[in-house]
Amino acid sequence: MKYTIFGESHGPAIGVVLDGVPAGLELDLEAMAKDLARRAPGKDGLSTARREADKVNIISGLFAGKTTGTPLTLVIQNSDQHSGDYEALRWTPRPSHGDYAGFIQSKGNLDYRGGGHFSGRLTAPLVAAGSVAKQLLARENIWVASHISAVYGILDRAWEDVEELRCAASKPFPVLDDAKGEEMRQAILDAKNALDSVGGAIECVVAGLPAGFGAPDFGRNVEGIFSQYLFAVPAVKAVSFGAGVGFSYMRGTEANDPFEIKDCKVVTKTNHAGGINGGITNGMPIVFEVTMRPTPSIALPQESVDLRTGEEVEIEIKGRHDPCVVHRAVPVIEAAAALAACEVLGL
Amino acid sequence: MKYTIFGESHGPAIGVVLDGVPAGLELDLEAMAKDLARRAPGKDGLSTARREADKVNIISGLFAGKTTGTPLTLVIQNSDQHSGDYEALRWTPRPSHGDYAGFIQSKGNLDYRGGGHFSGRLTAPLVAAGSVAKQLLARENIWVASHISAVYGILDRAWEDVEELRCAASKPFPVLDDAKGEEMRQAILDAKNALDSVGGAIECVVAGLPAGFGAPDFGRNVEGIFSQYLFAVPAVKAVSFGAGVGFSYMRGTEANDPFEIKDCKVVTKTNHAGGINGGITNGMPIVFEVTMRPTPSIALPQESVDLRTGEEVEIEIKGRHDPCVVHRAVPVIEAAAALAACEVLGL
Amino acid sequence: MKYTIFGESHGPAIGVVLDGVPAGLELDLEAMAKDLARRAPGKDGLSTARREADKVNIISGLFAGKTTGTPLTLVIQNSDQHSGDYEALRWTPRPSHGDYAGFIQSKGNLDYRGGGHFSGRLTAPLVAAGSVAKQLLARENIWVASHISAVYGILDRAWEDVEELRCAASKPFPVLDDAKGEEMRQAILDAKNALDSVGGAIECVVAGLPAGFGAPDFGRNVEGIFSQYLFAVPAVKAVSFGAGVGFSYMRGTEANDPFEIKDCKVVTKTNHAGGINGGITNGMPIVFEVTMRPTPSIALPQESVDLRTGEEVEIEIKGRHDPCVVHRAVPVIEAAAALAACEVLGL
Amino acid sequence: MKYTIFGESHGPAIGVVLDGVPAGLELDLEAMAKDLARRAPGKDGLSTARREADKVNIISGLFAGKTTGTPLTLVIQNSDQHSGDYEALRWTPRPSHGDYAGFIQSKGNLDYRGGGHFSGRLTAPLVAAGSVAKQLLARENIWVASHISAVYGILDRAWEDVEELRCAASKPFPVLDDAKGEEMRQAILDAKNALDSVGGAIECVVAGLPAGFGAPDFGRNVEGIFSQYLFAVPAVKAVSFGAGVGFSYMRGTEANDPFEIKDCKVVTKTNHAGGINGGITNGMPIVFEVTMRPTPSIALPQESVDLRTGEEVEIEIKGRHDPCVVHRAVPVIEAAAALAACEVLGL
Repeated sequence: MKYTIFGESHGPAIGVVLDGVPAGLELDLEAMAKDLARRAPGKDGLSTARREADKVNIISGLFAGKTTGTPLTLVIQNSDQHSGDYEALRWTPRPSHGDYAGFIQSKGNLDYRGGGHFSGRLTAPLVAAGSVAKQLLARENIWVASHISAVYGILDRAWEDVEELRCAASKPFPVLDDAKGEEMRQAILDAKNALDSVGGAIECVVAGLPAGFGAPDFGRNVEGIFSQYLFAVPAVKAVSFGAGVGFSYMRGTEANDPFEIKDCKVVTKTNHAGGINGGITNGMPIVFEVTMRPTPSIALPQESVDLRTGEEVEIEIKGRHDPCVVHRAVPVIEAAAALAACEVLGL
Repeated sequence: MKYTIFGESHGPAIGVVLDGVPAGLELDLEAMAKDLARRAPGKDGLSTARREADKVNIISGLFAGKTTGTPLTLVIQNSDQHSGDYEALRWTPRPSHGDYAGFIQSKGNLDYRGGGHFSGRLTAPLVAAGSVAKQLLARENIWVASHISAVYGILDRAWEDVEELRCAASKPFPVLDDAKGEEMRQAILDAKNALDSVGGAIECVVAGLPAGFGAPDFGRNVEGIFSQYLFAVPAVKAVSFGAGVGFSYMRGTEANDPFEIKDCKVVTKTNHAGGINGGITNGMPIVFEVTMRPTPSIALPQESVDLRTGEEVEIEIKGRHDPCVVHRAVPVIEAAAALAACEVLGL
Repeated sequence: MKYTIFGESHGPAIGVVLDGVPAGLELDLEAMAKDLARRAPGKDGLSTARREADKVNIISGLFAGKTTGTPLTLVIQNSDQHSGDYEALRWTPRPSHGDYAGFIQSKGNLDYRGGGHFSGRLTAPLVAAGSVAKQLLARENIWVASHISAVYGILDRAWEDVEELRCAASKPFPVLDDAKGEEMRQAILDAKNALDSVGGAIECVVAGLPAGFGAPDFGRNVEGIFSQYLFAVPAVKAVSFGAGVGFSYMRGTEANDPFEIKDCKVVTKTNHAGGINGGITNGMPIVFEVTMRPTPSIALPQESVDLRTGEEVEIEIKGRHDPCVVHRAVPVIEAAAALAACEVLGL
Repeated sequence: MKYTIFGESHGPAIGVVLDGVPAGLELDLEAMAKDLARRAPGKDGLSTARREADKVNIISGLFAGKTTGTPLTLVIQNSDQHSGDYEALRWTPRPSHGDYAGFIQSKGNLDYRGGGHFSGRLTAPLVAAGSVAKQLLARENIWVASHISAVYGILDRAWEDVEELRCAASKPFPVLDDAKGEEMRQAILDAKNALDSVGGAIECVVAGLPAGFGAPDFGRNVEGIFSQYLFAVPAVKAVSFGAGVGFSYMRGTEANDPFEIKDCKVVTKTNHAGGINGGITNGMPIVFEVTMRPTPSIALPQESVDLRTGEEVEIEIKGRHDPCVVHRAVPVIEAAAALAACEVLGL
């Protein structure tokens, strides 16, 4: 199953083609809409004021409610666009956005309106594609759930219980510890008021994957497959499996996961490896954390250059922006993880 | 350029086939041997006592000293093997090794001697392949260098100057700050004496990549390409670009990299993005850090299970092992980075 | 550049996503419309009576008339559908159609209306994609042209002159020898009147490709690349390069192409190899012929089985069908060839 | 399962790496040796006088006689080389060989001795890889067999009976009709005596593939997959499925395969489609024919150019050559077909 996401923030439509979806899946469009709603900007002041219906229109690959096995095309019309906001920034790239790198790559031919193809808006079709993947996984009793693990240095507590995590994942502000969640929200509002933004992290769990999938080799190892999907999500700058960066502070005795027999199954007492040994699933839940950079769009004046004149200039980014993308990215990370899990399993 | 690494730790040979190497590269075999020597276990008590010549034999793709453009095959004969050491562990997987996951994946058909195809020994052909990649990059004035950034919580100082880093990379114990290096070595020896092991991290820089390579999309974005190569290195459990996991503690004002003009070129004043925006190179050095878990092979007794009887058992791993793989992994990470950079550039 | 064609004959729309189109191509939409018109059913009684506007709607990847380098999505709305015609055939597969094989593959979930995703209608987006490829090739002074080389055993004369071929390719019934073309048309009308259909062949030339692209190896050889694109065109059952099947009747002295120097360039006096030696372009035009089977949809009664009851049944195919697809397939084969040439060149 | 063939005709060794072989296959090395013997030059004067042991050395991926699921590397040492024969032709490409195209592609860096990587000798590892594929298919009750269908215009009769074909495939000169075989042998000897060569064709059958594998789409359709493997065999210039090029002479009534029920299974009465409809297997045997060009190496004087001076020159090819490759290519085509069938089935 391969996906191609297409579209520009201010073009007529965005969408995704999923090639290789197995035939016969009865697509649950309500589940898809729910995941899209989790990604949609809330009315809580934590997100952009841009409002999009994000209604998915399926134009191929579905017949009588079921997938046909032919390419599945999901299209979302664009609507609430303020393209005028962007004309000013056409020649003056926003720091830490894709503007400059994309300008060079496209030899000046990018659709610069609203970030074009680089816009976080393109994560809507990714969530839709991820919903298809989640539904395929559900048939194998595999589920994906995640929570905000950090915003601006404020940490949620670690995940312990399956049901608790799935419950947290569906909250409007998906954290395990709501008090910490309140602190995080305040940090976001503070940043917003300061015309600034904040970064954070998301912890995600894929449970139910059987042992024995993957390989140590390039192109087949499970960490490599997951990371390729995860880094394709805008703003993700680090991916860490199990104890992750913490391994650098550990001894083998602390890091190793002892085996035991539980319910006649081989399991490990701890899961520092995040469910993967030697690039292969070991039957424990896959656990990883992604770090997301602060939104580069901030309203404060910033230093840029004019690509026409080669002169240094100061710019101010107008328009509607998210002071933090982490809370909206939760279903996006789940979508990427679900697509990765499908590749690992060969679904 | 695609690579396939083959071989088992105790089989007749290990090696790599590189498909798609451009024709006409005058291969510097001494440079390759130097990189392999950096990976070889030292005589300083920090590494395994296994001794291998690691002499590369080129059996295809090279003619009159130059690459022909046809598949390039590099083979290293195995020699100093103590297979007897491993028979005892055939049915009792070592915690946090690939043994159990690989057993399930291969339906019991793995070569269990010395870790088989999962052995760190397989990083020798990776280093050889990486040397070819480095030589291709050198023709484009791109270089790769790295240093140990952490061992068991002891941090080297951050990289600042190009020449200093390249100099550090070629040290026997590659750190910027030798005093910190001494502390790290002591931590490794302490772990060894305690029959334990330690983890750490490596920071790597790829400098000279022009702006405009990559894309935001799945399969083309630079972070995704690099991470796929990096996670194919055994023991790597986290990959972090630029400020990486630190982004989760930052505001946009701290994280954004302001533009400026320097020597008539657009550059950024800081490089928190690690040289990549929107999945595309921005012309600044690519900077990333990988975290490596502590060697799972420790001599202390550990809890395992007997895969024949399904009973819990205690095991002791005999044989020669590295108490830390980080210092030997420095050229391995460079090799993976060089191969990734070649893919990004389409070399 | 990779393409994914999506859609079903009687779904809301069909289309194609082209991923990897270079940025900055000023897309000539009129040229695209012309190629689509060449594929459209004529009013001459040789084709189906289904009428489609085939208007291409570009929903991503184009900005200010130029490609942006991001996925280019071309959509064609469906309109003139008579779905009722097909209900009768839902459970009784049409001989030599994809119905039965597709039914098994999709576990009964195909969109059976009008051939669904298997319909020849899906060649419309392929022609649109091919037009993009042709425009990329034109910038390199490479062009693609083809003619009907056979219909029901009536052969057009062989291609000799560049200008003559390009002229023939743009005729309503694209042959070099119009008298032969008239015979072919009569054979098609005869078949139509007999409620039958006829097969044929198309010869195609890609001229201007420089020498030195491709490789002998799997996945890189030029014949292999072209054939993969060509066999993806419905009804193509044979692909033959240069002297092709004729080689089986030849000696080396007849088959070999002697070298000579012409205008200071190395060329061959003959081109039996069809421009490819050892899987690599040799600078001569790439010449190949594809054979297309007779349309399996014929109005005569045919033997089928009922997939519900497992009984043998006789069926009659209603609806509008082409008694021959060869003349309409000329721009389709050119499209496939143009996409293949782009892959060979790495465009 | 992906394969990479490496090596040069006069290098130290040739071989193949097979990545993705399922674990647990008990490799039958005798069967592999038998297929290699079928490819080896005979002592009947029909083939080159070069003698090679073609002993396969397995250096990875096999343990205790079974595949481990890790890359399987098969190496064949080179021995009976007369490199001196080739020095004369270094700068004067042999007509219709890969010499010139390869010279341009490699910017003059090819190993020109004995055809280097372009040599027919490289089909030995392909046969070895194909033997692995055949053994995987045999577990699914799928077999591959082929016969010479034509040499220099002399046609073997068409395949009808399964057992007869498998029997013919194992003959020293694999034809169904031995009288025709004798004529073919004479045609080869005549060509040899005239210092010339002849072309021919091979018909191949893959029987036992279940219905429902493949897709109409690019990259997934069965004809496209097979053709990519087949055109990677040197000298193959045409690939034709089922009635193949004959379709161009047929009406739908002749070409269509009527359905019937046999032994409670849906089958077709004829198999003009060669087992594939709409790019998907239909459960009937896959039948195809490949055309192989006459060996370009002929001893008669030929016209070439000197790549150093740009002058036209006459050359004479010395050394040992096959006056016809068709009879030796029979197991090679089977190997390519077996690898293709494995890809189609996802083995």
